[in-house]
Parts: sequence; C-alpha cells; structure tokens
Amino acid sequence: MNFSRDAVIQAVGDGLLSFPVTDFDEQGRFDRDSYRQRLEWFVSHEVSAVFVAGGTGEFFNLTLDEFRAVVTVAVETVGGKLPVIASAGLSVGAGKAYARAAEEAGADGILLMPPYLTECPQDGLVEYARNICDSTSINVIYYNRGNGVLEAEAVQQLADACPNLVGLKDGKGDMQLLNQIVKTVGDRLVYVGGVPTAEIFAEAYLSIGVNTYSSAVFNFVPELAVTFYRALRQGDSATVKRITNDFFIPFINLRDRRKGYAVSLIKEGATIIGRSAGSVRAPLVMPNEDECKQLENLVRIARQL
Amino acid sequence: MNFSRDAVIQAVGDGLLSFPVTDFDEQGRFDRDSYRQRLEWFVSHEVSAVFVAGGTGEFFNLTLDEFRAVVTVAVETVGGKLPVIASAGLSVGAGKAYARAAEEAGADGILLMPPYLTECPQDGLVEYARNICDSTSINVIYYNRGNGVLEAEAVQQLADACPNLVGLKDGKGDMQLLNQIVKTVGDRLVYVGGVPTAEIFAEAYLSIGVNTYSSAVFNFVPELAVTFYRALRQGDSATVKRITNDFFIPFINLRDRRKGYAVSLIKEGATIIGRSAGSVRAPLVMPNEDECKQLENLVRIARQL
Amino acid sequence: MNFSRDAVIQAVGDGLLSFPVTDFDEQGRFDRDSYRQRLEWFVSHEVSAVFVAGGTGEFFNLTLDEFRAVVTVAVETVGGKLPVIASAGLSVGAGKAYARAAEEAGADGILLMPPYLTECPQDGLVEYARNICDSTSINVIYYNRGNGVLEAEAVQQLADACPNLVGLKDGKGDMQLLNQIVKTVGDRLVYVGGVPTAEIFAEAYLSIGVNTYSSAVFNFVPELAVTFYRALRQGDSATVKRITNDFFIPFINLRDRRKGYAVSLIKEGATIIGRSAGSVRAPLVMPNEDECKQLENLVRIARQL
Amino acid sequence: MNFSRDAVIQAVGDGLLSFPVTDFDEQGRFDRDSYRQRLEWFVSHEVSAVFVAGGTGEFFNLTLDEFRAVVTVAVETVGGKLPVIASAGLSVGAGKAYARAAEEAGADGILLMPPYLTECPQDGLVEYARNICDSTSINVIYYNRGNGVLEAEAVQQLADACPNLVGLKDGKGDMQLLNQIVKTVGDRLVYVGGVPTAEIFAEAYLSIGVNTYSSAVFNFVPELAVTFYRALRQGDSATVKRITNDFFIPFINLRDRRKGYAVSLIKEGATIIGRSAGSVRAPLVMPNEDECKQLENLVRIARQL
Repeated sequence: MNFSRDAVIQAVGDGLLSFPVTDFDEQGRFDRDSYRQRLEWFVSHEVSAVFVAGGTGEFFNLTLDEFRAVVTVAVETVGGKLPVIASAGLSVGAGKAYARAAEEAGADGILLMPPYLTECPQDGLVEYARNICDSTSINVIYYNRGNGVLEAEAVQQLADACPNLVGLKDGKGDMQLLNQIVKTVGDRLVYVGGVPTAEIFAEAYLSIGVNTYSSAVFNFVPELAVTFYRALRQGDSATVKRITNDFFIPFINLRDRRKGYAVSLIKEGATIIGRSAGSVRAPLVMPNEDECKQLENLVRIARQL
Repeated sequence: MNFSRDAVIQAVGDGLLSFPVTDFDEQGRFDRDSYRQRLEWFVSHEVSAVFVAGGTGEFFNLTLDEFRAVVTVAVETVGGKLPVIASAGLSVGAGKAYARAAEEAGADGILLMPPYLTECPQDGLVEYARNICDSTSINVIYYNRGNGVLEAEAVQQLADACPNLVGLKDGKGDMQLLNQIVKTVGDRLVYVGGVPTAEIFAEAYLSIGVNTYSSAVFNFVPELAVTFYRALRQGDSATVKRITNDFFIPFINLRDRRKGYAVSLIKEGATIIGRSAGSVRAPLVMPNEDECKQLENLVRIARQL
Repeated sequence: MNFSRDAVIQAVGDGLLSFPVTDFDEQGRFDRDSYRQRLEWFVSHEVSAVFVAGGTGEFFNLTLDEFRAVVTVAVETVGGKLPVIASAGLSVGAGKAYARAAEEAGADGILLMPPYLTECPQDGLVEYARNICDSTSINVIYYNRGNGVLEAEAVQQLADACPNLVGLKDGKGDMQLLNQIVKTVGDRLVYVGGVPTAEIFAEAYLSIGVNTYSSAVFNFVPELAVTFYRALRQGDSATVKRITNDFFIPFINLRDRRKGYAVSLIKEGATIIGRSAGSVRAPLVMPNEDECKQLENLVRIARQL
Repeated sequence: MNFSRDAVIQAVGDGLLSFPVTDFDEQGRFDRDSYRQRLEWFVSHEVSAVFVAGGTGEFFNLTLDEFRAVVTVAVETVGGKLPVIASAGLSVGAGKAYARAAEEAGADGILLMPPYLTECPQDGLVEYARNICDSTSINVIYYNRGNGVLEAEAVQQLADACPNLVGLKDGKGDMQLLNQIVKTVGDRLVYVGGVPTAEIFAEAYLSIGVNTYSSAVFNFVPELAVTFYRALRQGDSATVKRITNDFFIPFINLRDRRKGYAVSLIKEGATIIGRSAGSVRAPLVMPNEDECKQLENLVRIARQL
C-alpha cells in the first residue's frame, strides 16, 4: 500500500480509471515482461488509478497464483506513481485469500466482485462483503454487478459496517437503482461507472454524481479515451457527441455481436496497435477476421478524432 | 389543433409535462364534469403541455368512445392555452381510428403506444408507426416502451419517413439505448423521459439532452412537481437531492410493492388531496389501507418540501 | 353456440386444436371467400375444434368489425361440425365487446387474451377476467400469457368465481408454474398447450395432464400435424422423435430468426402449399427470400415424414 | 475411481440421485465427522449415486482445500458402494485443479459448473468444458445452468469431442431447449433434471427421456423423496399428485420467499430432523423463525405421505 485512504478515494473518485488487459504468452501463460511494458505505457498517460486483474483483465480466468503474479508486477511497475487496485471475489473464503494476496503484493485496494454461481439475498451479500472487508486493511470498492447487486439500503448498511469500504462501482447501468444509492448513501462513498463501454453512460453517470468510470478502450485508443473524459468533464458536449457517434456507437454494435466481446475486442485492439497481450482464455473467444477488420477501421477513425 | 408544429415541439421539448388521470364515477363510467375540473386545475399551474388518456390516464382501459369523450372535454377545457396531446396504439387499424378521433376532437398531437400482444421486429414496428403517422395530419410522439421499443437506426428511419413525427418518449430507462438514439437522431426529434416516476431519472435524462419528462405525481403534489422541475433545470442539486430522498425514493418503494401501482397510487393521491378521480379499472387495483396511509404521509411530507 | 358446455370441454380438452390464419386480400382487407375455403379445408381434417382470430389469426391486428366478420364466416362455414372458439381481450370494456360479438356471431367460446400494455397484479387480472366471463353466456378459456399470467391460486379463484370458465391455455412454457396450476386446480378446467410451435412442448405438456395443444403448423402441413399428434397420444416416441428432429427443430431455428415469425412463417407456409392467406399486417413482416426457400424445403421434408 | 464408465452412466441415468449438504461446525469449518455420518446415512437409502460438493453442497462456498477434504471423506465413507461425483468449475485453470483433486481423492466423476462472472459465447463454453474434460480421466457431467447454458448444437460438439463426457444436467428448466438437446444428442449422453426442487419438473423431465433428477429434499425427508421417485417411475400419478400438492407446492412457495433458500431450507431441514449440518455460509442466510416453523410443519406432513 503506497497511498493513504484519502488519496485512494481522491484518485478513484475523480479522473480517468484504467483497466489493463492481462498479458498471456503464446502458451497462454501470464507474460510478466509484456505486462510490465503495458503498465509502463499505461502510467505514461493521464490516468488517476490502475485497476489490475479486473473484468477487462480477466480476473475470472486467473488462478490465485497468477493473480498474485499480476498484482506483484503491477505494484512494482507502477512504483507508487498511482494507486493500484486489484480484485477479490468468488466466496468469503476465496475472497479473503485474494484480498490477502493483493495486500501482501502491495496493492492499495481491491475491487470486490460478486459471489460465484449462487443466488444471493441482500443481507447475505452484505455479510459476504463485510467478511472480506474485515479481513483486509486495504481499501475496498464494491462492484455492484450480476448476482451481487446491492440495493440502496444494503449499500448503506455495508458502508456503515466497513470503514475500509470506500467506493461502489456500478456494473448494472440501472439509473433508478444507482440514483437511489447515490442519493441515499451520498459522499460516504465514491462512485465509479462500470458497465461495459462505460463511456456511453458517462454523461448520465456524471449527472448524478458518478464522476468517473472504467475505460476499457483506453487499452488501445488511450488518446481518444483521455480526450473523451476531458470533454465530458469540461462540458464540451460537441466533442462528446462526435466521439460517441463516430467511435463508441459503432464499437458497441460490434461488441454486441457476441457475448464476451466487451473483453475480447479490447485484447484484439491491443494487438492492432502493436501492443499484443495475446488471446483471451476460454470461455471467451477472439473476434473473427471480419470483425478484426472492422475494429482496425475504428482504430483508424479514433486516431482522427 | 390549436398549435403549430413548431409550437408543439417547443412545448413538448421543454417544460413540465402533465398527464392527468381519467375520472370515473361511482359506477365506473367516465365522469366529464370531474375531469373538466381536473383539467382547469391542471392548467392553472406552470406546465407546458397536457397529455390526456396517456398511461397515467389509463388509455389501455378506455374504449374508443370513451377516449373520444376524454379528448373532447380536454380540448374544450384547455381552450387553446396549452397543447393537448392524446394517445393512439394497439394496431394499425385501431391506431388510425384513435388518431382520427384525436384529430377530430381537436388534439394537437398523439402519443403513439406499442402494438397489442405480439412480438415485433424492428422494421415491422417502423411500418406500424409509419402507417399511423401517415393517416393523420397532427403531430406524433412515439412511445418507446414494452414490445414496441425501437433502436436508434429504426428511430432514424421513422423520423426520415414521417414529417409529423416530432418526438420520442422513452419508457424503458435504458440509458445506453436512449443515448444511442439521441446521439444518432439528434435534434430532428424532441425527447421526453417517460419511465414510471420519471423524476428519479430526471438528471440522467437531462444530461443527454432529454430536457423534460412526464410527471405523474403532478396529479396530487403539483407544487412539489414544479419545484423539482425548476430545481433540476436551474442546477439546484441540493433541492433535487432533498426532494428525491424525502419524497421520490419512499414513493418508489411504495409503488414497487405491487404491479400497476405506478397508476393506482396516483389515483389514490388524487383522492387524498380532495380531488378524487374515482378508482382505477381492472386489471389495476387500488392500494390497501396501510398503503393509503403511507401515501397520505408522503403527501404531508411533500407539502413541506 | 352449437355445442353444450360439456361438448366444448370434451373437444378442447382432447384432440388436435386448429388455429387458422386470417386471410387478407391484396389490399390487406379481410378476404371472406378465401377464409371460407380455408375453413372448409380445415374441418376436412381430424381436428377437434377451430380457434378463429387467435394469435396465429392475428387477433391483435383486427378491428372489432373485422373480428365480427371473421367469426361470422367461421361459424357459417364450420356449420356446427366442430366448436368454434373466437377471442377477446384488451380491456374489460373491449373484452366485453369482443365477447358479445363472438356470442352474437354464434361462437361456442372465447379465448381470453391479456390486457393491453399495463402491468397487472394477480387480483386485478382475476377481476379483469371475471368481468368478461360474467358478461357472456359462452365458454371461456383463459390464455395465460405475457402480462396476463395467472399463478395457481389466482386460477383457482377465477375458476371458483366463473362457471363458464372451462379451460386454461398456457402461453408461457414455464413447467413449474403450469404443474402448480394443474395440480392445484385439477380437472375443474381443461388445459391446452399454447406456446409458439407447441409441438416441441407436447410430451412435457402431456406428462402433467395437458392433453392437447394449439398446432399452428397445421395451417400448412396438416398431415404432419395430425401424424405427430396421433404418435404422441399413442406413445409412439420414435415417430415423435423423427418429426421433431427433421421438422420441428429446424422450423424453430428458422422461427427464432426474427420476432413475430411464429405467425409470419405460418402465413408463408400457406402460400407455399397454394393456399395463400395474403401477408401479415404490420408490426409483423413476411420472411425474406432465403427464409422462404428454407421453409419450402421444410414443407418438402414434412411431406415425406 | 471405483466404477467403470458404463457403471457411472447406468447409475447417473436412472435412479434417485442424492446431493448431500456440506457440514460446517459452529466455527463454520468443514466438519468431517458430521459429514461422514451424513454419508453413511445417505447410502443406507435407495439412491443410485452421491453428488458431493454440488449446488446443495455449497460448492460455490468451498475453497479447493475444503473441497478436497469433502471428496476424500465422501469416497472413504461411501466405500465403493455407489459412484461418488464431485464438482469442478470457475475457470479453465481452477476447473482443472478441482477435477484433479476429485480424481486424486477417488471420485468417479465431476459435475462441471459454469464459468465465474463472465458472459460466454457458445464456442467459448465448449472450449472451456473441453479443456477441463481433457484434463481428467474421470467422467464428466456438464451442468447446463446460468451463464454456462449450452444449446443443442454445442452440446453435440462437446459430446463429439470428449469421450469422458457422459451426461448433461439441466439447471434451467427450459423444456424447449432441453427437448432440442435430448432429441438432437440422444443416448450419447444421460440426462439429469437439476432445477431447484426438481421434483416439480419430474414428470415433464421423464416425458422427454430425462429419467432422473437431483433430489435436494432427500437431505431431510428421504422417505418422501424415494416414495415420490418410485411413484413417478411406476406411473402412479395419484401419489405424485398428492405429494406435489401437500409437500412440494408449499415447499416451493416457502423457497421462493428469498434468494438462495433452495439451499438454506435444506440445511434447516437437516437440523429439524436432528441431523444438523450447521448453517449455510454467506452470501446465503438461514431462514427466520417463522419460516423454520413452516418448514417443521412440512416435515410433519411429509412423514404422513
């Protein structure tokens, strides 16, 4: 941990958040060197925090040992320049193990993912999250997603119970729910937009006090991602509209062609710009040739925006 | 028709939109006198248009003859002070009949509801809407809801084909879809927020250029509805937050207790403030005693906000 | 009405049920002559009842006047050989009007469709259905579908309240719900399988006491439909499997390509076999050329099964 | 591994399948002794296989070390009398580790659960499952559930690619999909019904060739579970109906009160009959006092059926 609680809150609550893909080599193993170079390149841009082994980083496809290696390389490489946030989840037992690994590797926080497989009642989710929060001294951001979605009252309970819970990331895109949470819990937490291709929600997020979001496309069009974020925060709606129309809407149309492409296309984008991170692991699949060409074309367009 | 196309666009695109409930007497028949008084009271407030026999007005529970009577009373009572927008829908054949009835009764436009019962492909929906638009000379606002939800490309096609299509009302609350539509179609149309209790989405709507919304609670707490809208448009986020927390969030929790309460509670609210519109018709049901008391309490709170 | 309550129950509860498409001419108007010929042809097969202006008959696309004409032609043409069941729905007011029209035209029963557009609580749905049942002396079959799905307790209440409610048609395909209904309500009602392409559910339906179903493909491959039904009832699972594999699975794959094809493909099938009923009305659309060829091929296959 | 491939197929494809809960002590740790006694009691009944650390056994709440202990105790205790099937899942990497642990502990097969968290395309799922199948020499049953649901064509591909894939367990309850799978893939696989409280689907399952199912209630009313299964297979529909009405329908109503109760109520049931397995782990929660009383009452009823 290199950053104080307040510094993490500051970084996560405002500024562009980056979510690097995880590098695999040709045998599909974690590729430390390639990942190190990726992170050096990441932190050379105007971002405020680095979330490693997150959704875009295929947390769900990593073993605990791989996860530990990913976080270790990340903390070393970022070198205290920015907060490094890792992940945890799956179950109370596994979640504690991931949180401990993250803490030992020097991460500044964890993004807490939903439980595996099971349906969950609200109070059970609070208990799941509380157990994992209590097991670690680093900061926790709860990822409100899938079978783990908390409603406003439950978020309030969790925030009251866990001092190291500092934020909530939305992965559902339900504006009624999110507004209820933000209005109820207020500035006790910071809020992060986290639906796939969150830029399409960015204006709506900002309107209710969700000042930032996870930019997956930063992995392959970082200048565009930064330009979009700046335009958004400066109220430059013409630029927001132009980039949305020319890049994000066609990107989303391509993304929606197959399940999992919210991650797969990001890895393909990295290859297109000469910074390959290898292929996604099953159950994800890489895009086909035609889709790759469409993505190449979008990269070209992005460079002119 | 009392208003020009431009005047309707102006009124519908900006300013608080009101959706009166439809008055039924003790035998459950349309009550003209009570409805007339309701509309006189409505237009004494700061609203920019009156949508009659809409969702809150139980369009789905009215026969064509009743609909004609409702619109006729409304047009007479509003007397050209504000645009009156009626509804149409169900099928191409019925939709044309409703649109003709609205036009003959002097309405300034129709809100076009989805087809009845069937699944609909995108191009079939465009054809459905185009046929009804083409059958009338008054303005049309398409209600993007239920089985009738159009995606961005289809909205563009419909707007290109139908000069009298002037607006789109969102009834889905999917910010990705709505943002794609607004960014794609732009100011060719005006946009209206129209999910149940739309105030909870109001900030998000506004952020992407949806400047107004349907206020159902205006039926029983009109001052609160107007105060909220003003605060929203003036960027007074403290007032927006206070009213959301103290009124809209508990109201939504009450509303979500049973299906159809988005309408039923509005009618109960009208009774509570001494302006009864009778009961909803089946398949809707009125709230139970305990719920009525909770709503009374919310009315008391609203008066202090 | 040509059949007693018991005779209707007998016919609807056992035996293949047929659902003719509604004939439109080149201008899209109801075509009486063509429809008359269709019904004559229908009743020359081994079916136990004729459901006119049902889902496959585009009830949702017909005006009340057209509906009256459809039922009148049907009753005349069937001539008392089989029970004729028409439809009703939309709202209490409209539902009563449709039921009256059906009764006046001589129909033996109505299939009661869900309300239009609105969300519905269980007790509101019971009230909706009860009002319409009470308004008519003919038999009613409740169609459990879309926003009108009743749970077991509500079905029991409705059956207790309405002596002329004789059946329930399932349009949801939720075996848990349907089994709860059948086990709870028992033989007070007869049960009809009514999901799209119900043959794929036929074995499961039969296993819990739903002895029959609506066969839409009867419109263009009646021999296959009859053969399948006979094999099912005789426990000839080899034939059931062969027809399912060679016809119904590819048909379902084609049907699932676009919304509404559960009806559109049936009309195209009628054209293919030389008994055109014209095109579907918007919001439905006819299949494209390639899909028509695939359907032609399936018709060829059906003739060899 | 104590059983040949054929013997496992035989046992899993026909006969009542049992899914023991996993015992936790008062500190929430795996309780070997209590679990051993449970298994001894299980195999004293008429069951054909034991699935350990499955859904009812909270697989999703166990670490790999705990899982290994569970399987080891199970294999020892069952002692070759019946096949023991363990679980695997989460990701390709974790799935291989679980499969290896199961194999090393002497299990006869694994039930392969869906990937964690991510959306999955069909071919990616096939690849996920194939990788795990290929990593083990024991038999695999694919659990078609949640984000891991395979369609008919993909099941066929997987069956073609993996000789040790011997079965498919349905966890979705979609009869159209399941019938398509069974009709397409046929007796290359055995099929197991596996929705929560699968007895409510048992007749429908059986009708399409799914001869058996997972009985969770066997954990606390084993005689009832066996009686029901016998009646089902003997075509004794009166007994099936009586048990469904008097036990399963009220049980399902209780179960549906809160998410996760499909497991929680089973553990409570074990306590009620004096064979406590401790409490479920978060994110699950135990039922409240009133619900416990209702369940006690159901146990009393079960004893009289």
